[in-house]
Amino acid sequence: MTGNGLAPRLNIVTLGVSNVAKSRAFYEALGWHPSSASRDSIVFFDLGGVVLALFDREHLADDATVAPAGDGFRGVTLAHNVESDADVDAALAQAERAGARIVKPASKVFWGGYSGYFCDPDGHLWEVAHNPFVTLDGQGRLQLPPPERVP
Amino acid sequence: MTGNGLAPRLNIVTLGVSNVAKSRAFYEALGWHPSSASRDSIVFFDLGGVVLALFDREHLADDATVAPAGDGFRGVTLAHNVESDADVDAALAQAERAGARIVKPASKVFWGGYSGYFCDPDGHLWEVAHNPFVTLDGQGRLQLPPPERVP
Repeated sequence: MTGNGLAPRLNIVTLGVSNVAKSRAFYEALGWHPSSASRDSIVFFDLGGVVLALFDREHLADDATVAPAGDGFRGVTLAHNVESDADVDAALAQAERAGARIVKPASKVFWGGYSGYFCDPDGHLWEVAHNPFVTLDGQGRLQLPPPERVP
Repeated sequence: MTGNGLAPRLNIVTLGVSNVAKSRAFYEALGWHPSSASRDSIVFFDLGGVVLALFDREHLADDATVAPAGDGFRGVTLAHNVESDADVDAALAQAERAGARIVKPASKVFWGGYSGYFCDPDGHLWEVAHNPFVTLDGQGRLQLPPPERVP
């Protein structure tokens, strides 16, 4: 990859959290298992090739050299896609049992799918969606139509 | 997957943006090619199995049924991992040529790697990092050590 500049790749999504242990417990209650590389200060989950990291919110701001203050809508959502409307209901029910707040109960949505939202202990928004127009591969990854022109 | 509840999976990261066309142009200037499923209102990039979507920020808040107001640090960062310190420098230079603001010039960091941050036109933070302790596979995906116990 050397010299290519910026390949189209997202490796890690890091969520700034107020209490790493509490957030870890929440995601473990979803049934997710942290990598053994996790420590008290940072937790890593392999979410199908992309890594979810949980890290102290103030330390995350420090690392990026930005001011830590901020509130309201973050302008970022994370989506978990499943293969049927029933799977959406099951996933949201599991999230609720794990202690999630259901932000939006599942419903038919304007784009033709079925989805709802929950949030984690810090308010990070997760959508659970069934999109009948896309396919999930054997690893559960979305199969997007390719670009129209590839150079 | 039916009945399994919530598999450990992240399919889509959606960034709420103030101007979808402008954001699309920025990410295209990075050298990324939108899926042909993209429309004027929403743009999709395949970033190695996880999808990056760009969507109007107000509409994204509406979809999640949350108030759109919000400012300051979002508590979320996205990381792009590369294989050497020189690749970090090259990637940040390419981002800057594409119009990114460099938030943090690349430097050696406390955890033993080398990284810097840029932000997109809406201030979404991207870290570009070389982590000498992890491996990228043939698709450029991070190879995390597995969980200690898998049930």
